[in-house]
Amino acid sequence: MRTITVGVLGAGRIGRIHTNNLFRMSGVRVKSIADPYADFTNWPPDAVATGPDPELVLDDPEIEAVLICSPTPTHAPFTDAAAKAGKHIFCEKPVDLDPDRIRQTLAVVEAAGVKMQVGFNRRFDPTFARVRKAVTDGEIGDVQIVKITSRDPEAPPVSYVETSGGIFLDMTIHDFDMVRFVTGSEVEEVYAMGAVLIDPAIGDAGDVDTAVTALKMANGALAVIENSRQAVYGYDQRVEVFGSKGSAEAANETANRVTVSGAGGVRRDNPLYFFLERYQVSFAAELEAFLTSIREDGDPPVGGRDGLMSVLIGLAAARSMAEDRPVKVEAP
Amino acid sequence: MRTITVGVLGAGRIGRIHTNNLFRMSGVRVKSIADPYADFTNWPPDAVATGPDPELVLDDPEIEAVLICSPTPTHAPFTDAAAKAGKHIFCEKPVDLDPDRIRQTLAVVEAAGVKMQVGFNRRFDPTFARVRKAVTDGEIGDVQIVKITSRDPEAPPVSYVETSGGIFLDMTIHDFDMVRFVTGSEVEEVYAMGAVLIDPAIGDAGDVDTAVTALKMANGALAVIENSRQAVYGYDQRVEVFGSKGSAEAANETANRVTVSGAGGVRRDNPLYFFLERYQVSFAAELEAFLTSIREDGDPPVGGRDGLMSVLIGLAAARSMAEDRPVKVEAP
Amino acid sequence: MRTITVGVLGAGRIGRIHTNNLFRMSGVRVKSIADPYADFTNWPPDAVATGPDPELVLDDPEIEAVLICSPTPTHAPFTDAAAKAGKHIFCEKPVDLDPDRIRQTLAVVEAAGVKMQVGFNRRFDPTFARVRKAVTDGEIGDVQIVKITSRDPEAPPVSYVETSGGIFLDMTIHDFDMVRFVTGSEVEEVYAMGAVLIDPAIGDAGDVDTAVTALKMANGALAVIENSRQAVYGYDQRVEVFGSKGSAEAANETANRVTVSGAGGVRRDNPLYFFLERYQVSFAAELEAFLTSIREDGDPPVGGRDGLMSVLIGLAAARSMAEDRPVKVEAP
Amino acid sequence: MRTITVGVLGAGRIGRIHTNNLFRMSGVRVKSIADPYADFTNWPPDAVATGPDPELVLDDPEIEAVLICSPTPTHAPFTDAAAKAGKHIFCEKPVDLDPDRIRQTLAVVEAAGVKMQVGFNRRFDPTFARVRKAVTDGEIGDVQIVKITSRDPEAPPVSYVETSGGIFLDMTIHDFDMVRFVTGSEVEEVYAMGAVLIDPAIGDAGDVDTAVTALKMANGALAVIENSRQAVYGYDQRVEVFGSKGSAEAANETANRVTVSGAGGVRRDNPLYFFLERYQVSFAAELEAFLTSIREDGDPPVGGRDGLMSVLIGLAAARSMAEDRPVKVEAP
Repeated sequence: MRTITVGVLGAGRIGRIHTNNLFRMSGVRVKSIADPYADFTNWPPDAVATGPDPELVLDDPEIEAVLICSPTPTHAPFTDAAAKAGKHIFCEKPVDLDPDRIRQTLAVVEAAGVKMQVGFNRRFDPTFARVRKAVTDGEIGDVQIVKITSRDPEAPPVSYVETSGGIFLDMTIHDFDMVRFVTGSEVEEVYAMGAVLIDPAIGDAGDVDTAVTALKMANGALAVIENSRQAVYGYDQRVEVFGSKGSAEAANETANRVTVSGAGGVRRDNPLYFFLERYQVSFAAELEAFLTSIREDGDPPVGGRDGLMSVLIGLAAARSMAEDRPVKVEAP
Repeated sequence: MRTITVGVLGAGRIGRIHTNNLFRMSGVRVKSIADPYADFTNWPPDAVATGPDPELVLDDPEIEAVLICSPTPTHAPFTDAAAKAGKHIFCEKPVDLDPDRIRQTLAVVEAAGVKMQVGFNRRFDPTFARVRKAVTDGEIGDVQIVKITSRDPEAPPVSYVETSGGIFLDMTIHDFDMVRFVTGSEVEEVYAMGAVLIDPAIGDAGDVDTAVTALKMANGALAVIENSRQAVYGYDQRVEVFGSKGSAEAANETANRVTVSGAGGVRRDNPLYFFLERYQVSFAAELEAFLTSIREDGDPPVGGRDGLMSVLIGLAAARSMAEDRPVKVEAP
Repeated sequence: MRTITVGVLGAGRIGRIHTNNLFRMSGVRVKSIADPYADFTNWPPDAVATGPDPELVLDDPEIEAVLICSPTPTHAPFTDAAAKAGKHIFCEKPVDLDPDRIRQTLAVVEAAGVKMQVGFNRRFDPTFARVRKAVTDGEIGDVQIVKITSRDPEAPPVSYVETSGGIFLDMTIHDFDMVRFVTGSEVEEVYAMGAVLIDPAIGDAGDVDTAVTALKMANGALAVIENSRQAVYGYDQRVEVFGSKGSAEAANETANRVTVSGAGGVRRDNPLYFFLERYQVSFAAELEAFLTSIREDGDPPVGGRDGLMSVLIGLAAARSMAEDRPVKVEAP
Repeated sequence: MRTITVGVLGAGRIGRIHTNNLFRMSGVRVKSIADPYADFTNWPPDAVATGPDPELVLDDPEIEAVLICSPTPTHAPFTDAAAKAGKHIFCEKPVDLDPDRIRQTLAVVEAAGVKMQVGFNRRFDPTFARVRKAVTDGEIGDVQIVKITSRDPEAPPVSYVETSGGIFLDMTIHDFDMVRFVTGSEVEEVYAMGAVLIDPAIGDAGDVDTAVTALKMANGALAVIENSRQAVYGYDQRVEVFGSKGSAEAANETANRVTVSGAGGVRRDNPLYFFLERYQVSFAAELEAFLTSIREDGDPPVGGRDGLMSVLIGLAAARSMAEDRPVKVEAP
């Protein structure tokens, strides 16, 4: 297996997760990590070069692939620069909050002829992949209804909410991608309703913390997503696809399979607490898929267009809620 | 326990179910059953008088309570007549498809001072009652999101669809009542989307067979209902209520609790096939509650106003789908 | 459907359950109930004759079938008398604690040519019947291992224990019958171990409250039963049959299908509390089967020989525990 | 974190699993691997020394800890040699099939003052660890009954069976350790019954393929283990502990959490196929625990005495089956 040399831009939480996953893989070498704010004292191992400037990664001709894990506003410019430097790109979502800026970047990537994968890791979760398989194998027939439950265990700080682009671009964006993934179809129209039921400060910041989004798909199916910023019992991530031959339903993951019966009832431990635990496997699997697409010169399983589509749906949802009417999703 | 003498109008499927349930109860005597079309050869037992004319029931001063199980267009006139005759009324849903006609009947009932219960039997199902209890006991805190899955095992004949009033008044009406029941709050605004994915003839008849309905509740909660006329695995009747302290989720009922593991996977038998099996217990329980309200001179647990509200929500949903916009629910 | 006239001997708890079930059935008339100790003030309805003496039932030529629900020591003599009077017999278990006495009674019944059913109601439970069906349908292949979990919610009073014949004849006897039922094979050898872990007074009375019994079946399969007199979470009644093509596993029944998730975990309500709730359906179903066997002149599904076999296994288990060695089951 | 230098004896299946796990860990360096039969062409990485002779590992003063993954007959001699060389030892189970040989080795290890851990990996499985926690936390009170289901997905070749020491020393030995682990108590007496129901060749080789073992524990609890060499639906590994305050029940692990409902029933995928998949996490966790015990100079969580006890119970079970009588477990 050919070894791929990788550089990483951004050493925050998600950058470290990805880099540590790369350390555990065969056929990949992390050569350098650039971050202007990170403390590199105890991490990474000495063999990895570190520094504040992206040029450490972008200007190194030995680096074949770049992971972009820096803040959202840098995603598009770093993707542009990496593409122009002839490097394959794994970019965290969203590519940008402005669809035109994404389109511009996708054009740069296409012109450069490099591969680009966007970090919709949930597609690589074994449970959701099994749901998708039920669709592609014809096990449940033609898709008619998709239901997604997506609830975080705790609301983010208001400071985060203020710059996140709103619940639909920050949180539901994953669910929009999931609807597209499990159906293999595009979203045509969106109707979204939201409420502030958890933290009034989120409302003061102009966002909602509870939302229901209904979608019409190009293949005729209907979909519904419901979100909450706070499920006190932990991260609630479920998907159900219903079709002409049956349904496939994904339940929550838990840390163990134990049921305890006592005088007060029959209990199981709560679902895994949040995305770091819940999507541990899928974070590694998406990088494996990215590296494989490079090695075998294939298309990455989640491309730049997927990154664009989910933002377009998110913007339609935000407008729908603001104007209390269904909104068509803009063409890519 | 005081014995209540009951008459029944309508000996079709639902009329027979109710009457047979009455036969198994203590403290109630079924005196007569009127139906112009029924064949009374083998049923009921000889002790029960039968005949074609409603007067058999309505004009009998010994009859204290009437079950109205006849076709929908007769519900309002029979309710009026029974009320004027001073009889307590159990009326199948919907009371009428026209809210004004329902209002007129509710006024007659109120003027007569008799009790009226509408046949939203699902409220009496032990599983849904347990969900409601989780709300009223404060076990799951303030309600934030309600999700209802309601799928029939097979589509009705098109002839039925043509006179049913459409999916929202015929099928979703139960789910609208369920949302009101579990939340204890009213629906303010509705957005509905529908599709014809199962039987094109249903579309030709002007109806849809697949629907997603999003609702805003007076208490601020959001709700979503999804319906299908055909789930090949059986009757799919689930409710989930999510709140500030947790969630309560009702799974489907099955005929047994057996899991069979084999080379091909781990299997359970399908959910109970349809409403006769699924709601067997609740059909009996709603009548028990009706008789108790008479005996103890209390309010029936589901009143005429509940019958009106669900029709108003259904009409808003139908209009929403027709006009592709959210629609406010009319005041009762 | 021909109406069968029934008399009941014994109006204690189980006698009332059976009689009330008969009241709700078609094609059966309860003519009289005899019990020397019962208070008949508020029950049964006036149409039923009552009195202290068994002759009220046994000497009435109109009575075609007798339910024997009186204390255990009277089972055999009442069965003998009913058989000699030409009446069909439903007898509660055990027929007697002495196998020879049972053999004598079975001979009387056979000579009289009447039908006899023994009250192993669990065979009629829809869940256990489904397990049996998995065997007879070949769904799980040849049976290799049977596992039974049978735990009561609370220990009986010591006064009861003293006359019950011990845990194997009082409690495990049902499980011995279940092993025979689900396998369709006979028990050849038994090894039983017991312990006093719940109530020392049970040990003082010469019995155990916790037991594990291992069995060798005639068809080569192995079986294991574990019993406890006290499961604080309720009645725990599970059966698993494992075979060459898979396994069938029966879970506990619950009053509802609701799961509540909260900060402290994911909870369901406890299993149904005890046999009155858990076996409500099977108590009625066994009587229906008894009446059907009379009407259609067929063999009752659980006969006198089944009553004898379970006692023989129970006696072998008791001896095994006493002598700490495996014991062969005596031939019927 | 201090880096520990490790050598590995045996590069067969289990040796590779352990070594690859070490490669993914921090704070550990695999310096050399010795195996007289292994093909080292494509594995391990070049930095690791390989060779046929155990001296490569045993004579290297830099190596601090040894993993013994060679065939069973070499476990004791290699453990002796490693101990004398002052190295800490992780030894696969069983240490030996002869208790006296194990005792001899344990004496050598004790004299050398090195740490020894035996490879009962299942103790480190998150699900079984949660069951143990339910006991130690007092969540289920005093243990009264333990039930273990342990079924392999397919029978081993007869050639393997012939040298394995029999089902109780090869397969049930893990379950004996599990009973000791979850109860924290010792086994005092064993009664075992076996049958040949899967492969007659296993019977010809003098072994059984189906077994039920009943155990009396020192703390008064009863336990039962049932084993099969072939569950067609996959690896069936369940444990239930029942106590005075409730029960803790471990269900099987599966590759995903999807339920598919169709016309033929409600299905889930089978349990994980075999121990490589099922115990992937616990294989890594036991090594982490071993390395931690070295680093922190603590006792390994599973010691040599645990290895001895499980063999003593296995021998008692084999004798019990052979002589069809309960057998006391020999003192360590």
